[in-house]
Amino acid sequence: MLTIESKLKELGYELPLIPASKGIYKRCVLAGGLLYVSGHVSINTDGSMIKGKVGADLSDEQGFVAARQCGLALLSTLKDHLGDLDKIKRVVKLLGMVNCPPDYTGHPVVINGCSELFAKVFGEEDGIGVRSAVGMGSLPGNVAVEIEAIFELK
Amino acid sequence: MLTIESKLKELGYELPLIPASKGIYKRCVLAGGLLYVSGHVSINTDGSMIKGKVGADLSDEQGFVAARQCGLALLSTLKDHLGDLDKIKRVVKLLGMVNCPPDYTGHPVVINGCSELFAKVFGEEDGIGVRSAVGMGSLPGNVAVEIEAIFELK
Amino acid sequence: MLTIESKLKELGYELPLIPASKGIYKRCVLAGGLLYVSGHVSINTDGSMIKGKVGADLSDEQGFVAARQCGLALLSTLKDHLGDLDKIKRVVKLLGMVNCPPDYTGHPVVINGCSELFAKVFGEEDGIGVRSAVGMGSLPGNVAVEIEAIFELK
Repeated sequence: MLTIESKLKELGYELPLIPASKGIYKRCVLAGGLLYVSGHVSINTDGSMIKGKVGADLSDEQGFVAARQCGLALLSTLKDHLGDLDKIKRVVKLLGMVNCPPDYTGHPVVINGCSELFAKVFGEEDGIGVRSAVGMGSLPGNVAVEIEAIFELK
Repeated sequence: MLTIESKLKELGYELPLIPASKGIYKRCVLAGGLLYVSGHVSINTDGSMIKGKVGADLSDEQGFVAARQCGLALLSTLKDHLGDLDKIKRVVKLLGMVNCPPDYTGHPVVINGCSELFAKVFGEEDGIGVRSAVGMGSLPGNVAVEIEAIFELK
Repeated sequence: MLTIESKLKELGYELPLIPASKGIYKRCVLAGGLLYVSGHVSINTDGSMIKGKVGADLSDEQGFVAARQCGLALLSTLKDHLGDLDKIKRVVKLLGMVNCPPDYTGHPVVINGCSELFAKVFGEEDGIGVRSAVGMGSLPGNVAVEIEAIFELK
């Protein structure tokens, strides 16, 4: 069986470098039997931010890619924290937050960028959890997407 | 003792049909001893969406009804998933998200539409959990309200 | 060792009076081994609301203070509920919601007002949890900041 990391490589995805933050928070906390992970913003592989409002500055497709990059950032943090992504049992929950204008309506399709990634690497049963995909008035540094998550470990 | 379903019938409420979604997510995931439920948007009994911004397109009272319909949608999903709504022990947490203009201030009264429903059917002790009732910049398909929830099972 | 309450006193902070609310919710629910706490809005020590949009009506520094007051409000509720703040083991998660205009970008620095307080009173290991710091379209009563939290008890 392929490891999660070899699946990522096969799909052509690279885990981004998570830049230092001005925020006072931990990236992961294990509590109540679940691994809570902080909101991760949309970044490129080099750690630079993917900025702009989806539906104004960015297309739906660019929003989808931004959400996928949030997913890769979450996986990068999980690899740092756990050492091995195969310690993850399943995705429990995502809160997908899209930076967009008040008349934007395509949030689910944008957040699918992350959900599709997790479904591909963890499989449809374990990689898909519950979710809300919603529109924020604004996000830190004007990033396009931010996603927070809860995972269950093996 | 009345079952939850007979209480709903007595109150005159009907569980809506949950329409198919373009989003990649599960409606419920049981993890860490709790049942996580995806954000459910405001829909009518026939599954059509209740759209518009509360405080602009919709009145507070219409927002209240939209939030109650989110609650009924959550219960519809729970019935599908559990078979029997009496398997629910208590409401743990709601995140009530109102689609509204930047100067809107009445979020708690709107989300009470869902909270009051749950208090009536599960009782004041078990039906009322913790909550945030907040204003989103936008919501999928321009729905009026979206609510995600955590439940504890018996 | 100093108690949490004596640390608060030493830092010169006072727990605010939590005003009655029109919302139907509990302030705390213990479930799945964790203590869930409702969203607490920015209030002064006398319980009056700190209102306005950060980045328009309020400066970043005023937003920071508003977030710290949310933290003190959370602690006030926890003291009421638990009797003793030393029963808290750790901060698991914060959702920090800033009321701000669409072009605002400084959310992490604002929510640090709460995170820094918790780090000071509970220590860096236990006082810092995971976090998202994001911008809402609007908040109840036009409050500046609202923060919901999950804690682990000893």
